[in-house]
Amino acid sequence: MDPKSLSIIGAFVAVSMGAIGPALGEGRAVAAAMEAIARQPEAAGPISRTLFVGLAMIETMAIYCLVIALLLLFANPYA
Amino acid sequence: MDPKSLSIIGAFVAVSMGAIGPALGEGRAVAAAMEAIARQPEAAGPISRTLFVGLAMIETMAIYCLVIALLLLFANPYA
Amino acid sequence: MDPKSLSIIGAFVAVSMGAIGPALGEGRAVAAAMEAIARQPEAAGPISRTLFVGLAMIETMAIYCLVIALLLLFANPYA
Amino acid sequence: MDPKSLSIIGAFVAVSMGAIGPALGEGRAVAAAMEAIARQPEAAGPISRTLFVGLAMIETMAIYCLVIALLLLFANPYA
Amino acid sequence: MDPKSLSIIGAFVAVSMGAIGPALGEGRAVAAAMEAIARQPEAAGPISRTLFVGLAMIETMAIYCLVIALLLLFANPYA
Amino acid sequence: MDPKSLSIIGAFVAVSMGAIGPALGEGRAVAAAMEAIARQPEAAGPISRTLFVGLAMIETMAIYCLVIALLLLFANPYA
Amino acid sequence: MDPKSLSIIGAFVAVSMGAIGPALGEGRAVAAAMEAIARQPEAAGPISRTLFVGLAMIETMAIYCLVIALLLLFANPYA
Amino acid sequence: MDPKSLSIIGAFVAVSMGAIGPALGEGRAVAAAMEAIARQPEAAGPISRTLFVGLAMIETMAIYCLVIALLLLFANPYA
Amino acid sequence: MDPKSLSIIGAFVAVSMGAIGPALGEGRAVAAAMEAIARQPEAAGPISRTLFVGLAMIETMAIYCLVIALLLLFANPYA
Amino acid sequence: MDPKSLSIIGAFVAVSMGAIGPALGEGRAVAAAMEAIARQPEAAGPISRTLFVGLAMIETMAIYCLVIALLLLFANPYA
Amino acid sequence: MDPKSLSIIGAFVAVSMGAIGPALGEGRAVAAAMEAIARQPEAAGPISRTLFVGLAMIETMAIYCLVIALLLLFANPYA
Amino acid sequence: MDPKSLSIIGAFVAVSMGAIGPALGEGRAVAAAMEAIARQPEAAGPISRTLFVGLAMIETMAIYCLVIALLLLFANPYA
Amino acid sequence: MDPKSLSIIGAFVAVSMGAIGPALGEGRAVAAAMEAIARQPEAAGPISRTLFVGLAMIETMAIYCLVIALLLLFANPYA
Amino acid sequence: MDPKSLSIIGAFVAVSMGAIGPALGEGRAVAAAMEAIARQPEAAGPISRTLFVGLAMIETMAIYCLVIALLLLFANPYA
Repeated sequence: MDPKSLSIIGAFVAVSMGAIGPALGEGRAVAAAMEAIARQPEAAGPISRTLFVGLAMIETMAIYCLVIALLLLFANPYA
Repeated sequence: MDPKSLSIIGAFVAVSMGAIGPALGEGRAVAAAMEAIARQPEAAGPISRTLFVGLAMIETMAIYCLVIALLLLFANPYA
Repeated sequence: MDPKSLSIIGAFVAVSMGAIGPALGEGRAVAAAMEAIARQPEAAGPISRTLFVGLAMIETMAIYCLVIALLLLFANPYA
Repeated sequence: MDPKSLSIIGAFVAVSMGAIGPALGEGRAVAAAMEAIARQPEAAGPISRTLFVGLAMIETMAIYCLVIALLLLFANPYA
Repeated sequence: MDPKSLSIIGAFVAVSMGAIGPALGEGRAVAAAMEAIARQPEAAGPISRTLFVGLAMIETMAIYCLVIALLLLFANPYA
Repeated sequence: MDPKSLSIIGAFVAVSMGAIGPALGEGRAVAAAMEAIARQPEAAGPISRTLFVGLAMIETMAIYCLVIALLLLFANPYA
Repeated sequence: MDPKSLSIIGAFVAVSMGAIGPALGEGRAVAAAMEAIARQPEAAGPISRTLFVGLAMIETMAIYCLVIALLLLFANPYA
Repeated sequence: MDPKSLSIIGAFVAVSMGAIGPALGEGRAVAAAMEAIARQPEAAGPISRTLFVGLAMIETMAIYCLVIALLLLFANPYA
Repeated sequence: MDPKSLSIIGAFVAVSMGAIGPALGEGRAVAAAMEAIARQPEAAGPISRTLFVGLAMIETMAIYCLVIALLLLFANPYA
Repeated sequence: MDPKSLSIIGAFVAVSMGAIGPALGEGRAVAAAMEAIARQPEAAGPISRTLFVGLAMIETMAIYCLVIALLLLFANPYA
Repeated sequence: MDPKSLSIIGAFVAVSMGAIGPALGEGRAVAAAMEAIARQPEAAGPISRTLFVGLAMIETMAIYCLVIALLLLFANPYA
Repeated sequence: MDPKSLSIIGAFVAVSMGAIGPALGEGRAVAAAMEAIARQPEAAGPISRTLFVGLAMIETMAIYCLVIALLLLFANPYA
Repeated sequence: MDPKSLSIIGAFVAVSMGAIGPALGEGRAVAAAMEAIARQPEAAGPISRTLFVGLAMIETMAIYCLVIALLLLFANPYA
Repeated sequence: MDPKSLSIIGAFVAVSMGAIGPALGEGRAVAAAMEAIARQPEAAGPISRTLFVGLAMIETMAIYCLVIALLLLFANPYA
C-alpha cells in the first residue's frame, strides 16, 4: 500500500489500541480506588493523590498514541 | 485500497474499538462504585467525585476515537 | 472495495461492536448495583443515581457507534 | 462484493453480534438479581425496578442491531 | 458470492451465534436462580418470576436471530 | 461455492455451534442445581422444577440449530 | 469443494465440536455432583437423579452431532 | 482436495479434538472426586459410582470421535 | 496436498493435540489429588485408586492419538 | 512492501502495543497501591515510593516503544 | 509441500506443543504438591509418591511427541 | 521481503512484544509488593530489595528485545 | 519452502515455544513454593527437594526443544 | 523466503517470545515471593534463595532464545 493509505490506517489503529489498553488499566485503577475509599474514607486524600498520579502516567500512553495518529495524518515525513 | 475507502474503514473501526475498551473500563469502575457505596453509604460523596473524575478520563479516550473518526470522514488531508 | 460497500460493512460492524462492549460493561454495572442494593437496601437512592449516571456515560458510546453507522449509510461524504 | 451481498452479510452479522453481547450482559445482570433477592427478599421491589431499567438499556443495543439489520435488508440506500 | 449462497450462510451463522450467546447467558441466570432458591427457599416465588422475565428478554435475542435466518431463507428481498 | 455445498457446511456448522453453546450453558445450570440440592435437600422440588424450565429454554436453541440444519439438508429453497 | 469432500469435512467437524462442548459441560456437572454428594451424602439419591436427567439432555446434543455426521456420510441428499 | 486426503485430515482432527474436550472434562470431574473423597472419606462408594457413570458418558464422546476417524480411514463411502 | 504429506501432518498434529488436552486434564487431577491427600492423609488409599482409574481413562485418549499417528505413518490405506 | 511504508506501520504498531502492555501493568500496580493504602494508611510513604519506582520501570518500556516509533519515522537508516 | 519439508515442520511443531501442554500440567501438579506438603509436612511421603506417578504419566506425553519428532527426522517412511 | 524491510518489522515487533510481556510481569510483581508492604510495613526493606532484584531480571528481557531491535536497525549483518 | 529455510524456522519456533510453556509452568511451581515455605518455614527442606525434582522434569521439555532446534540447525538429515 | 530473511525473522521472534513467557513466569514468582516475605519476614532467607534458583532456571529459557537469535544473526550455517 502507499504511504498515504498506511497513514490513515495508522491513525485509526493507534487511537483504537490507545483506547483499549489504557481504558482497561484506568478502569481497574479507578475501581480499586472506589473500594479503597469505601474501606478507609478518612484516607481519601492520599488515595486520590496516588490515583491521579497513576491515571496521569497511564493517560500519557493514550496521548502518545493520539500524538502519533495526528503526526501520521498531518506531519508525515513519508506521505 | 484508496484513501477514501480506508477513511470509511477507519471511521467505523475507531468508534468500534473506542466503544469496547472504555465501555468495559467504565463498567468496571461503576460496578466498583456500586459496591463501595453499599459498604460505606456515608462516603457516597468522595466516591462519586472520584468516580466522575475517573469516568471523565476514560471517556476522553472514547472521544479521541470519535474525533479521529469524524476527522477521517470530514477533514481528511489525504482523501 | 468501493466506498458504498464499505459503508454497509461499516454500518453493521459499528453497531455490532457497539453492542458487545457497552452491553458487557452495563451488565457488569447493573449486576453490581443488584448486589449493592441487596447489601444496603436503604442506600438504594444514591446507588441508583450513580448507576444511572454511569449507564448514561456507557450508553453514549453505543450511541456514537449508531451515529457513525447511520452517518455512513445516509450522509457519507465519499459514497 | 456487491452491495446486495454485503447487506445480507450485514443483516446476519448484526443480529448475531447483537445476540452475543447483550445476552451475556443481561445474563449477568439477571444472575446478580437472583442472588440479591435471595439475600434480601424484602428488597425485591427496588431490585426488580433497577434490574428492569438496566435490562431495558441493554436491550436497546440488541434492538439497534436488529434495526440496522432490517434497514440493510429492506431500506438500503446503496442496494 | 451470490446472494443465494450468502443467504444460506446467513441462516446458519445467525442461529449458531444466536445459540451461543443466549445459551451462555441463560445458563448463568438459571444457575444463579438455583443458588438463590437454595439459600432462600421461601423466596422461590419472586425469584422464579424475575428469572422468567429475564429469560424471556434473553430469549428474544435468540428469536431475532431465528427470524432473520428464516427471513433470509424464505423471504429474501435480494435472492 | 454453490448452494448445495453451502447447505452441507451449514448443516454441520449449525449443529456444532448448537452443541457448544447450550451444552456449556446447561452444564453450568445443572452444576448449580447439584450444589443447590446439596445445600437444601428439602428444596429439591422447586429447584428441579426451575431447572427443568431453564433447561427446556436453553434446549430450544439447540433445537433451532438442528431444525435449520435439517431444513438446509432436506428443504432448502435455493439448492 | 465438491459435496462429497464437504460431507467428509462435515462428519469430522461435527463429531469434534460435538465432543468439545458437551464434554466440558458434562465434566462441570459431574464435578459439581461430586462436591454435592460430599457435602450431603444422604442426598445422593435426588442429586444422582437430577444429574442423570441433566447429562441426558446434554448428551442429546452430542448425539445430534453424531446423527448429522452419519447422515452426511451415508444418507447425504446432495452427494 | 480429494476425498482421500480429506479422510486423512478428518481422522487426525477428530481424534485430536476428541482428546482435548473429553480430557479436560474428565480431568475436572476426577479432580472434583479427589476433593469430595477427601472431605467425606466414608462416602467414597457413591462418589466413585457417580464418577464412573459420568466418566463413561464423557468417554463415549471420545469414542464417537475415534469411530468416525477409523470409519473415515477404513470404511469411507466416498473414498 | 498428496496423502503422504497429509499423513505426516496428521502424525504430528495428533500427538501434539493429544499431548495438550490430556496433559492439562491430568495435571488438574493430580493437583487435586495432592490437595486431597494433604487434607485427609488417612484416605490416601481410595484417593490414589480413584486417581489412577481417572488417569488411565484420560491417558487412553492420548493413546488413541498416538495410535492414529502411528497408523497414519506406517499403515495408511490411502498412502 | 517498501521500507517507507513499513516504517509507518512500525510507528503505529509500536505505540499501540506500547500502550496496551504497560497500561495494563500500571493499572494493576496502581490498583494494588489503592488497596494497600486503604489497609495501611500510615504506610502511604513507602508504598508510594515503591509504586513510583515500579511505574517508572514499566513506563520505560512504553518509552522504548515511542523512541523506536519516532526513530522509524524521522531517523530511519533504511528509508 | 514435499514430505521432507513437512517432516521438519512436524519435528519442531511436535516438540513445541509437547512442551506447552505437559509443562503447564506438570507446573500445576508441582504447585499443588508444594501447597500440600506445606499443609501436611508429615504426609510428604505419599504426596511425593503420588506426584511422581502423575508426573511420569504426564511426561510420557512429552516423550510421545519427542519420539514422533525424532521418527519424522530419522525414520520417516515417506521421506 | 527483502532484509531491510524485515529489519524494520523486526525492530518494532521486538520492542512491542518486549513491552507487553515484561510490563505485565512487572505490574504483577509491583502489585504484590504493594500488598506485601501494606501487610508488613516493617518488612519494607527486604521486600523492596527482593522486588528490585526481580524487576531487574525481568527488565533484562525487555532490554534484550531493545538490543535486538537496535542491532537490526543499525548493525544488521544481512541488510 | 526449501528444507534449509524450514530448519531456520523450526529452530526459532521450537525455542520460542519451549520458552513459553515451561516458563509459565515453572513460574507457577516456584510461586507455590514461595507460599509453601512462608506457611511452613520448617518444611523448607522437603519443599525445596520436591520443587527441584519438578523443575528438573519441566526443564527437560525446554531442553528437548533446544535439542531439536540445534539438531535442525547443525545436524539436519534433509538440509 | 530466503534464509537471510528468515534469520532476521527468527531473531526477533525468538527474543519476543523469549520475553513474554519468562517475564510472565518470573513476574508470578516474584509476586509470590513478595507475599511470602510479608507473611513470614523471618523466613526471607530461604524464600530468597529458592526464588533466585527458580528465577535462574526460568531465565535460562530467555537466554536460550537470545542465544538462538544471535546464532541466527551471526553464525547461521545456512545463510
